[in-house]
Amino acid sequence: MTEDELGELREEIGRVTIEMAKLFVKRAEISSDIGRAKKEIGMGITDESREEQLRGIVLDACRRELGGKGGGDSSSSAAGPAPQEAAVYRFLNFLLGESAVIQSQYRRGGGPGHQPVCAAECCQPATESGGGEGGPTHLSVFQAAKRLEAEEGRQIIHMEVGEPDYMPPGAVATALSESYGRGHIRYESPRGMPALLDALAEYGSKRFGASIGPGNVAVTPGGRFAVFAAMSALLGPGDEAIIMEPAWPAYRDCAAYAGARVRAVQASLDESWMPSIRDISDAVSPSTKMIILNYPNNPTGAVLRPDIMDGIMEIASDRGIYVLGDEIYSEYVRGAKPWRSVASYGYQNAIAVQSFSKSHAMTGLRIGYAVADGHVIDKIASLLSLCMTSVPAPVQHAALSAVGQDVSGNARTISERLDVLASEARKMGMEYAEPDGAMYLFVRVGTDGARLAERLLSECGVAVAPGSGFGENYRDYIRLSAACEDANRLIEGMNILKSMLDGGHT
Amino acid sequence: MTEDELGELREEIGRVTIEMAKLFVKRAEISSDIGRAKKEIGMGITDESREEQLRGIVLDACRRELGGKGGGDSSSSAAGPAPQEAAVYRFLNFLLGESAVIQSQYRRGGGPGHQPVCAAECCQPATESGGGEGGPTHLSVFQAAKRLEAEEGRQIIHMEVGEPDYMPPGAVATALSESYGRGHIRYESPRGMPALLDALAEYGSKRFGASIGPGNVAVTPGGRFAVFAAMSALLGPGDEAIIMEPAWPAYRDCAAYAGARVRAVQASLDESWMPSIRDISDAVSPSTKMIILNYPNNPTGAVLRPDIMDGIMEIASDRGIYVLGDEIYSEYVRGAKPWRSVASYGYQNAIAVQSFSKSHAMTGLRIGYAVADGHVIDKIASLLSLCMTSVPAPVQHAALSAVGQDVSGNARTISERLDVLASEARKMGMEYAEPDGAMYLFVRVGTDGARLAERLLSECGVAVAPGSGFGENYRDYIRLSAACEDANRLIEGMNILKSMLDGGHT
Repeated sequence: MTEDELGELREEIGRVTIEMAKLFVKRAEISSDIGRAKKEIGMGITDESREEQLRGIVLDACRRELGGKGGGDSSSSAAGPAPQEAAVYRFLNFLLGESAVIQSQYRRGGGPGHQPVCAAECCQPATESGGGEGGPTHLSVFQAAKRLEAEEGRQIIHMEVGEPDYMPPGAVATALSESYGRGHIRYESPRGMPALLDALAEYGSKRFGASIGPGNVAVTPGGRFAVFAAMSALLGPGDEAIIMEPAWPAYRDCAAYAGARVRAVQASLDESWMPSIRDISDAVSPSTKMIILNYPNNPTGAVLRPDIMDGIMEIASDRGIYVLGDEIYSEYVRGAKPWRSVASYGYQNAIAVQSFSKSHAMTGLRIGYAVADGHVIDKIASLLSLCMTSVPAPVQHAALSAVGQDVSGNARTISERLDVLASEARKMGMEYAEPDGAMYLFVRVGTDGARLAERLLSECGVAVAPGSGFGENYRDYIRLSAACEDANRLIEGMNILKSMLDGGHT
Repeated sequence: MTEDELGELREEIGRVTIEMAKLFVKRAEISSDIGRAKKEIGMGITDESREEQLRGIVLDACRRELGGKGGGDSSSSAAGPAPQEAAVYRFLNFLLGESAVIQSQYRRGGGPGHQPVCAAECCQPATESGGGEGGPTHLSVFQAAKRLEAEEGRQIIHMEVGEPDYMPPGAVATALSESYGRGHIRYESPRGMPALLDALAEYGSKRFGASIGPGNVAVTPGGRFAVFAAMSALLGPGDEAIIMEPAWPAYRDCAAYAGARVRAVQASLDESWMPSIRDISDAVSPSTKMIILNYPNNPTGAVLRPDIMDGIMEIASDRGIYVLGDEIYSEYVRGAKPWRSVASYGYQNAIAVQSFSKSHAMTGLRIGYAVADGHVIDKIASLLSLCMTSVPAPVQHAALSAVGQDVSGNARTISERLDVLASEARKMGMEYAEPDGAMYLFVRVGTDGARLAERLLSECGVAVAPGSGFGENYRDYIRLSAACEDANRLIEGMNILKSMLDGGHT
């Protein structure tokens, strides 16, 4: 190969690129026309089944084009899809994402000079929108409740968020007090204080039935950062993540930030919130890079049946798909179903996320950690190093003092409160599945949950989380938290809920 | 518009998409051939000037294609480039990214199923590389020095990082101690504790000569996060940021994370490190979205001359360009030159970044803040909310106790040490500019700074920061920090440096 030949190849790629860019402009114009048409007809912008159909048609055309040119087997195999096919898929996802941007300009009133910059647009998390397009979420209700307390001096019964009303272990108070004197006020290395990494590796090995070394741990500012960092470091534009709905809204927010697409597998109350292996298998595409599990589950409290968990891990490991296990409620398992960490499978693409927020009631300390293979830990630490150097030293010192403290009393408290909530819900004839863990009861209310939540808060001072915040198929649900109020206040809240549902409060 | 017409548009977009996908496959094949050719010839995979050229050719072709079709003026305007042009730019960046993926598979041995993901590659900051491609940085030297101390018990003279050896104000110790008892252990709102926002707004209004309300402040985990969030929220693929070199390496890292390009304006010792307005003006392109200023400067200690500062603000405000002022050394101004915050210009696209790390010696507490217009503050808070909810409550409480504490003693300490460093450097005949502020002396050593730093550390236990970490034109410089050691140790370090430069240590 000579430099001349390289020059020719470059001219050729230039010609093809220009041709593609012209088609891209043409496509944008048609897309814009479609956006206008949809608006006139009154249709939504995205239409997943239509997108899926288009993907199928285009992939078929490309497979024919690829033919025997070394494009590999067009069907997916144990080693994953052929690289060309995965690339075409990414390309299509990029184009479909652009279509959504163009078509949504008709809603946002964007004209020339308006440049939807992905990084900026998509990092507006639903949790901050205070009830925009997707309606209110548990956090927007929380913020509204806090405003009512601060500005109008109202007494609110908080059943909307998972913030414990009990205190962190006393050792945390001591650790915070002594951090200045002991010099825990200096930069730490991005992955975390060595002593804390050691302690977490030891604790994790015992607790999760896995072989975890300090090199498998990264300390993060809350479990949230571990989810954010893993998703944004491992997913890129065109990639897909599978989530089980109902789900914590941050998974969709983080996927959007990474430019990745989400495929949601719907779980239903009829199946005790167990997702089906068949649905999960169907949701896997050549672009699937991650499956996100959150058990004990927020909002349903479900723990995965062992055969389903095994099945998911098998699907993932066959294809090298990452499995992100958000396991921050693992200290709150209460049912008979055995809970198992994704870390226990010895799978190199499994990432377990843990937090001190719920287990140790340390929400405002903002500390959690990820357990994973070194290659993932390095990526998480790199992002942490880039954006904040390290978790604050006094907070790490406090967490170190908390590791291994007996927090089983917290789990008992929550379990008892869940019994109270469930008993009240049963009396009211509400449908729900007995939670296997976590801190919530997810109940069907037979009416629009968002509207109900709004009225409950403004008219009666009871804050609950609307089901729609956890997925659009759960509009007639609300999530009740057992974290923030004692049994008496929970009963009071449930009575007010009953009277509103009965039409007593109008 | 009828559903039939929508159907026709969809058929058309389907046809265009298939055509594009086929070209995409063809392009991938050519790209693969180019990768093979480059490998044979021994060339690197990415070639910025070649990419830039291709962008220019393709954009020109698209502009002709767009013509008068409502694509907007193709030249830049105060309102920024036309949205179509920005979209084409994104499209090209996607294709160029794919090319790099395809071509790099020849080096990484990636086979089927191996999909390098951009998001993961670019969040590996230089600061974490420990001296990879870009050579060692101040942080990689720091980490190496820490290892020597921990593993070999060696005594190191630390002149490589800006971590003060003096303590935070005593009030911080009290605040940390009382945070548990006072309940500062719960989630805070993403922008920060209201009392802290009020205090910072009041302090900032006085200190920066600006009208700052609590709505103009966001509390962040260190100044670093404010820089990261502002850059990643305001810059996207295809955008450009202008920096003045020598510069703190994180600006390039954050730009790379956002997918943005950096144009560096070179400052020189001959001009006392003042960048020229002409060079800055020449560096502005239609894609320029941000100018980053860092004065008092790291590593040179320079403060901008008022006429240059005014000129930069004028260039920026004429074009609506963001100005990010990283002003974390503003409490360490020592020369006669008046320092002025970017916030004082009343410009709505100015962002001032402050930190408690240097001013209050609170490095390991990880707390800083951004001062900006509400639209920028919202974006920073959104990202913070997405990735970590809020800065830890005890840390915010500690910062609140620190606001307004008299820290002028710290500035005196550093200024005296800088005099010592300068006096020693002068005796050794080194070239440098007298620092107007900050904590560093940036000296020309007349030899490769990276090699010198490596030998100084391994052979003599003196840690210094190589100039190349601040820009590749500064290979024969090193940065000496006055933060970590007292005058006697600094003199000891300088004597060792002298003896190595004289050939005494070999």
